Amino acid sequence: MGETVLNTTPLRYSADGVSMCGQLALPDVQGADAPGKVPGILIFAEAPGVGAHVIRRAVALAQRNYVALAADVHGDGLVFDNPKTMLESINALKAQPERLHQRLQAGLQALAELPQVDPDRIAAIGYCFGGWCALELARTGAALRGVGIFHGTLHSPQDNSAGRIRARLLVCTGASDPLVPLEQVTGFSAEMNAAGIDWQVHLYGNTGHGFTSPEAGSNPRPGFGYSAESDRRSWAELVEFLDEIF
Amino acid sequence: MGETVLNTTPLRYSADGVSMCGQLALPDVQGADAPGKVPGILIFAEAPGVGAHVIRRAVALAQRNYVALAADVHGDGLVFDNPKTMLESINALKAQPERLHQRLQAGLQALAELPQVDPDRIAAIGYCFGGWCALELARTGAALRGVGIFHGTLHSPQDNSAGRIRARLLVCTGASDPLVPLEQVTGFSAEMNAAGIDWQVHLYGNTGHGFTSPEAGSNPRPGFGYSAESDRRSWAELVEFLDEIF
Repeated sequence: MGETVLNTTPLRYSADGVSMCGQLALPDVQGADAPGKVPGILIFAEAPGVGAHVIRRAVALAQRNYVALAADVHGDGLVFDNPKTMLESINALKAQPERLHQRLQAGLQALAELPQVDPDRIAAIGYCFGGWCALELARTGAALRGVGIFHGTLHSPQDNSAGRIRARLLVCTGASDPLVPLEQVTGFSAEMNAAGIDWQVHLYGNTGHGFTSPEAGSNPRPGFGYSAESDRRSWAELVEFLDEIF
Repeated sequence: MGETVLNTTPLRYSADGVSMCGQLALPDVQGADAPGKVPGILIFAEAPGVGAHVIRRAVALAQRNYVALAADVHGDGLVFDNPKTMLESINALKAQPERLHQRLQAGLQALAELPQVDPDRIAAIGYCFGGWCALELARTGAALRGVGIFHGTLHSPQDNSAGRIRARLLVCTGASDPLVPLEQVTGFSAEMNAAGIDWQVHLYGNTGHGFTSPEAGSNPRPGFGYSAESDRRSWAELVEFLDEIF
């Protein structure tokens, strides 16, 4: 996907009293060739915000004939470059989950209301913090066919929320990711089995946190970094998963 | 694959002083259309022996243009119908691993020597006991490009054997399989990461032991049984994996 020309357009919507600015990628079909409504994919970005990585994913999904919206969580399409400010902002949202949920749900609504999108066929995916966001959105009972979580944490502050999930779950995670230790996968397994959710976890060896993002490549910490192999494999999983749920 | 006509032919070879009878499936190509040598897939069956399930897999792989050999481990193509006799026979082999290894290696050699097979492009797969056999064969240092293990146990009596593995590993396992608890996956993860092996584990929710085999469907024990969904998904994983390694 590295060669893809970035051709998303801003999509503005409101949530939690804040003006949101996502990035929208549409399939390249026009006029008489235009298909009917197509499935929509909501994409939640890593903690800093809607940057190059998720914009590439949105474009790649649009090339597969999905409408893809990289949703904003911070407001005004802000991309943090200061980790301290970023964490303060995210922690403030996590401390008031109803505000966070409003923001996640508003992204879903903005996507579902697009004329090109079939609102009955929507999936959410996300990376790192965004993977957790996609799962949190499903835990609110949102009308999602599927959720794809890439190196995202799997536990939730929403107690007994697994039973509200209406989506099939695909988790792709690195076995050396210190933020998603295997005990967390074990807990997730027990929680989702008990709730009767359709779920699968794909565990990649010798793979750390952020493995889908080339931008993570230079991260010097053990357990973090890009893996071209696991990136490619997990993308193939997602393609297969979307084929399955739609 | 349920509709596939079974069209394997017996292939005889010797190992450990025993006459072995595997079942061979060849791609349907003839004359001028025949390709050069193609990759070979060695298939190890569930504990009872080479029965309908692995024969269907062999045929399905041949339809994908692989030469597939469902290898015999018991001798004379025996399929046990008495669980007690079967376990005695398997435990005798496990107690003398060099004998078991000879049998596994002889299957590989028989496949590699076929004129249709490229001996540099061979993978081994297996189901239940056969999955463990495929991994055991890799642990002997066998020349395998890949190993696919479906609801097979992951530990080995061969100490420090992970470093000898030359294959990429694909593990597909049910999260409710009592024979492959998640602690076993955790141990496998640590062992293979330490050895620098390329591995992936695909964990399926609400899925028990024997999930690929319709014949397991009537098994009344909790944690055992067929899952059409996980069977289909894990077959797709295998197809993708074979595409990748060859």
